[in-house]
Amino acid sequence: MKRLSVLGSTGSIGTQVLAVAECHPDQLEVVALAAGRNTDLLIHQAKRFRPRLVSVASPHDAARAQDALSDLDTRVLCGAEGLVEVARAGADLVVGALVGRLGLEPVLAALQSRTDVALANKEVLVMAGPLVLREAERSGARVLPLDSEHVAIHQAMAGHPREGVRRVILTASGGSLRGASREEMERATPEQALSHPNWEMGPKITVDSATLMNKGLEVIEARWLFDLDPDRIDVLIHPESIVHSLVEYVDGSWLAHLAVPDMRIPIAYVLGMPARLPLSEVRPLDLAAIGALHFERPDPGRFPCLELAWHAVRSGGTVPAALNAANEEAVGAFLERRIPFTGISSAVRWALERTPAQPGFVLEEILEVDRGARAHAREWVEEHHA
Amino acid sequence: MKRLSVLGSTGSIGTQVLAVAECHPDQLEVVALAAGRNTDLLIHQAKRFRPRLVSVASPHDAARAQDALSDLDTRVLCGAEGLVEVARAGADLVVGALVGRLGLEPVLAALQSRTDVALANKEVLVMAGPLVLREAERSGARVLPLDSEHVAIHQAMAGHPREGVRRVILTASGGSLRGASREEMERATPEQALSHPNWEMGPKITVDSATLMNKGLEVIEARWLFDLDPDRIDVLIHPESIVHSLVEYVDGSWLAHLAVPDMRIPIAYVLGMPARLPLSEVRPLDLAAIGALHFERPDPGRFPCLELAWHAVRSGGTVPAALNAANEEAVGAFLERRIPFTGISSAVRWALERTPAQPGFVLEEILEVDRGARAHAREWVEEHHA
Repeated sequence: MKRLSVLGSTGSIGTQVLAVAECHPDQLEVVALAAGRNTDLLIHQAKRFRPRLVSVASPHDAARAQDALSDLDTRVLCGAEGLVEVARAGADLVVGALVGRLGLEPVLAALQSRTDVALANKEVLVMAGPLVLREAERSGARVLPLDSEHVAIHQAMAGHPREGVRRVILTASGGSLRGASREEMERATPEQALSHPNWEMGPKITVDSATLMNKGLEVIEARWLFDLDPDRIDVLIHPESIVHSLVEYVDGSWLAHLAVPDMRIPIAYVLGMPARLPLSEVRPLDLAAIGALHFERPDPGRFPCLELAWHAVRSGGTVPAALNAANEEAVGAFLERRIPFTGISSAVRWALERTPAQPGFVLEEILEVDRGARAHAREWVEEHHA
Repeated sequence: MKRLSVLGSTGSIGTQVLAVAECHPDQLEVVALAAGRNTDLLIHQAKRFRPRLVSVASPHDAARAQDALSDLDTRVLCGAEGLVEVARAGADLVVGALVGRLGLEPVLAALQSRTDVALANKEVLVMAGPLVLREAERSGARVLPLDSEHVAIHQAMAGHPREGVRRVILTASGGSLRGASREEMERATPEQALSHPNWEMGPKITVDSATLMNKGLEVIEARWLFDLDPDRIDVLIHPESIVHSLVEYVDGSWLAHLAVPDMRIPIAYVLGMPARLPLSEVRPLDLAAIGALHFERPDPGRFPCLELAWHAVRSGGTVPAALNAANEEAVGAFLERRIPFTGISSAVRWALERTPAQPGFVLEEILEVDRGARAHAREWVEEHHA
């Protein structure tokens, strides 16, 4: 029996983690849950899984949850402290599925208490890769992937000696504006950017898919998760989102992971490791029905965010943290219709040029860079489209 | 250092095995070589690799080789006995790259002397799967694949628990007549059947690619190599020959092996196992340049040989041996322009219907079925197109 703590249990990844756990009650036990503002859903989940501990956003939410769960032997906490307690509630695996920098301290807490972490919350590694990896190395706990591309790489590397790996290729759907011209991108509305062809995700990540910044953030994650030199990571556009990533070996062999785009597939792999959890619910992959899988190189002229991410991962230190922070601000401004789609990369570039880089081994340093980069990105938004 | 004996060193696979060995002299040592009729090339190979033992076809060839190799400390043998001695010359791995039933006894000899065998000579498993596997089980030696599809499956299964495998898919290029109509197939000449789009191979196997019998024989091999129920094996047409096979897992994950069509790639994998031997000589795979990978279901109406192979593998015993023998005769008759391309499957079906099945655990029984099926196939050829 594997015990799970789920940070972010009411979000898109969190609910799918619980859906997989529900299908395998003999192998997975949920011991702690932490939610954001969706207290109703958290209460529903707690009644279903009877965890020892739950955490909600505010003291007000905590009182409500306490009331609703009075029949159960479940402790209720709230706020940042609650997240940290859920992370060290004695699970075998902590699922890190919070959004943004909120997830960083609970992940560090889990690693410090020698608990493996499966990480969907990509900002954690993007902001604080060196810090998180140092913590994992100290404690011996593992940082495992939980998104489709990195789980694909994990599967394609399992059982093959690491010295044999030449290169890793992350695939990108190309997002909602894959075929758009530079001019069409200038005029792209939030509605256009938000209509992703293959995956249903939140608005921030869907815009990141359209700029390819999402793939850039995943390059940074891959760099840390698999200890890869950035020059050994590449990106290919693959519009069907069936091949989730590829690993090239020194003998010219490649191993690729394929699956229908359904997050329960990578989730089940990581929750079940080393055994496979059967998923009879997912739609089977029918390659003959799909007919063709396409691949193309990303056009750097139309997707400058990808180049900015390459710059950040090659620079190292806190540059990826600055990239991530500036991008969050810029995407927010685009969704509020304050800047055009093409302004996102301009704001990020502006902020990167103005945020001094630090080594990135100290949390306060990272948070300072995060604040600085956000302020610079907002400057650009004000100056250019006030 | 891994010591190799190569059965069939002057053929297409054998020469590529030696090309890989030549690039990795610190890891691979050639201790014995056996050739068919190409004594000149064998002499050349022996001078280059200085094996302890070589074997050639006839006493006449042996005398010539002995003369040419008088400076070396190399023993020279010939005939069936020579093949068996090469198979048990004390190697760590015997490469079985002979053609047809000639390879069967040396492979059994290698396994009996507890030596792993890498098998390119597919007739060995097709004719005598139960017998070969029983011999391997008794001695503890392994039967490893050496063709691209089965090496692909081996790589996609390595490191993943076997209970997790749902299904295996072998890819087929579709051969030279992939897009031909039934009528065009009736009229197909040996020249048309022999123009394979992706691989350069001998005439028998190239015709087998065009009928899909080659894929059928590979289904039978996969059944034995990976101990798979035939219902867990499937075939897809993939004209680009880049994806060499796929393994489906119970969670909906698939792992695929991709590479440019170059036999040195699977050869290097098997010779190097568990380490990867770098192959800088092969053309790199560029998915963006290829652009699209296509998949389609094989049409049973146009490729009846595939159905005959399914019937054989499901029936078991000596039925695959009969299939293989009848097919060899029928392909020979087609290449001699005695029967049309579509007559190959008719002759095989005729022979299968008339050759009684046996359990297939005794060599003499298998050879008797082989002779019987050949005689029936020749009957069909005589009756229909004398």
